[in-house]
Amino acid sequence: MSIAPSELAYVPFVSVENMMRLVHHIGVEEMMAGICTNLEEDFRRWQAFDKTPRVASHSQEGVIELMPTSDGETYGFKYVNGHPKNTREGLQTVTAFGLLADVYTGYPVLLSEMTVLTALRTAAMSAFATKVLAPKAAKTMAMIGNGAQSEFQALALKAICGIETVRMYDIDPSATARAAGNLEGRMNVVSCGSPEEAIEGAQVITTCTADKQYATILTDNMVGAGVHINAIGGDCPGKTELHKDILYRSDVFVEYTPQTRVEGEIQQVGEDFEVTELWQVLSGARQGRRDRRQITLFDGVGFAIEDFSALRYVRDQLEGTGIYQKLDMLADPDDPRDLFGMVERAGEAVR
Amino acid sequence: MSIAPSELAYVPFVSVENMMRLVHHIGVEEMMAGICTNLEEDFRRWQAFDKTPRVASHSQEGVIELMPTSDGETYGFKYVNGHPKNTREGLQTVTAFGLLADVYTGYPVLLSEMTVLTALRTAAMSAFATKVLAPKAAKTMAMIGNGAQSEFQALALKAICGIETVRMYDIDPSATARAAGNLEGRMNVVSCGSPEEAIEGAQVITTCTADKQYATILTDNMVGAGVHINAIGGDCPGKTELHKDILYRSDVFVEYTPQTRVEGEIQQVGEDFEVTELWQVLSGARQGRRDRRQITLFDGVGFAIEDFSALRYVRDQLEGTGIYQKLDMLADPDDPRDLFGMVERAGEAVR
Repeated sequence: MSIAPSELAYVPFVSVENMMRLVHHIGVEEMMAGICTNLEEDFRRWQAFDKTPRVASHSQEGVIELMPTSDGETYGFKYVNGHPKNTREGLQTVTAFGLLADVYTGYPVLLSEMTVLTALRTAAMSAFATKVLAPKAAKTMAMIGNGAQSEFQALALKAICGIETVRMYDIDPSATARAAGNLEGRMNVVSCGSPEEAIEGAQVITTCTADKQYATILTDNMVGAGVHINAIGGDCPGKTELHKDILYRSDVFVEYTPQTRVEGEIQQVGEDFEVTELWQVLSGARQGRRDRRQITLFDGVGFAIEDFSALRYVRDQLEGTGIYQKLDMLADPDDPRDLFGMVERAGEAVR
Repeated sequence: MSIAPSELAYVPFVSVENMMRLVHHIGVEEMMAGICTNLEEDFRRWQAFDKTPRVASHSQEGVIELMPTSDGETYGFKYVNGHPKNTREGLQTVTAFGLLADVYTGYPVLLSEMTVLTALRTAAMSAFATKVLAPKAAKTMAMIGNGAQSEFQALALKAICGIETVRMYDIDPSATARAAGNLEGRMNVVSCGSPEEAIEGAQVITTCTADKQYATILTDNMVGAGVHINAIGGDCPGKTELHKDILYRSDVFVEYTPQTRVEGEIQQVGEDFEVTELWQVLSGARQGRRDRRQITLFDGVGFAIEDFSALRYVRDQLEGTGIYQKLDMLADPDDPRDLFGMVERAGEAVR
């Protein structure tokens, strides 16, 4: 007898290989632009989402987190770990996967790798914030910290905000060389020998360094009037990148205040430090950029809704592409009361 | 070029089909006995576990929950939904899957279906409670409610507690006929026309009905001295099976008090109603069965640690069997900083 499950019992699964296939099928810049469109849609309907804090399980070596959210129609969560010591052992610091489910039935509808996808959504999120807050006609960005996220950041700002030139700096020149090589032929790249050189003439400054401890990648005197800063690397307690004086000179924009107070640059200042949530700018409740001399600062830490936006983008792109596997993850007995019979009858077929 | 990920990037996945294959490979009774051994081990080291409450996302139609836990070495969580209206639409009320990860690295080490596995662990859990609390030399059980869980319950109590005869009753005689048919040749089955008939001569009474509303499957006068009751069906707010007078005549044992107060039979009584957590009996801190006339009541609702026990049983059995697939779920670039390069270089291979 056949024990093939019904179509409903299958969950589409996007492996790392298929995610890379999807990136090449769509194009990396086009894919980040598509995710950015979803981010904008989801930030515009911010109030529709369940905003549960992430559920963290801490150990001496790192943390494992579940980040759930729901818009009332679709439920999503991401599993993500953070283990800084992994790199020394030839493992990734961060691995992630995500799931979407239908709220009406509770059935999962997508399981996806999220290491590559998180890189895409993080860059798309910076581009989204930049699009909303940066000075008009910005053409040059500084990219300080040239690790795994840097090429995605530069290309997202190119595709979504019209940035033409990226000025790159990393404490490790081989990191800059790698990133510059990867970006060659895609945009103008200037490799710089110092952070000061990198920010020369840049209207947008993105910091994305890996320092775990309180660091000062940018000092106050380096930041001129009128720029937009994306501070991406400060994303957990004890990890910041900017001198706190910069915060006092800037208007600070965040994703979700309770989380950013713990994880973002603003952990350096008091609970009463005023911030604006980005969705409030979209809704018109709060002002974004007011004038040419204002410094806008996006203190990005990554929030569950962004993963949701990225996962639903992938779900919507899959149809017709065949760029996924079907996982037999849900039991589907003909008679729901007869689970035992289903297992029993499978005996001959599965032996 | 090859884009085959390294071994570390693969996560073993047990599909529904492979879970059924595993059940037949091991034997359903042997597998429940093995899970019961793990349950006992894990209840004995109860204090070692993170006991986070489940993270629930409620909607009008149902609930989606994440149930995480960790013993400091291994992290686990279960995704489970509950949608009572699904049955009317030809779908399962409950679907579930689970994951184990290595706390030291944060890497997932097992992804598994958990619809079949939850049925096995729920029955193993009842058998475990029965083994700890029931009168010695119990040979006959009553099984009230003959739905999807009933055959597993009966066989677990046979395999683990030496029960020889099951007396079955369901409000729907066709459910009893199905379950009795499935159990034929495995143990003595007596099909009964009323709950009163079912409990005649039974030293153990298991109730597992599907009523969502406050129900009274057992009334006080039906329960004689000295029996052990497993009340399994009451497992969410508003869903109970026993008349509350039975609670006052019994010593009540639970898995994790804060959860059972909300979901179990004891939601019918006050917060000050005294209960014993099962692990306290194992540790010797509290007494289990004291005398022949005492009624012991296991108010089971299902707890994250039980899923953990079942998942690690599956993980340990997989080795050498080949009864799993390998999912390419984790990105694994040769150079962790060069995620973009990994995606780029995959371009030719994946087109």
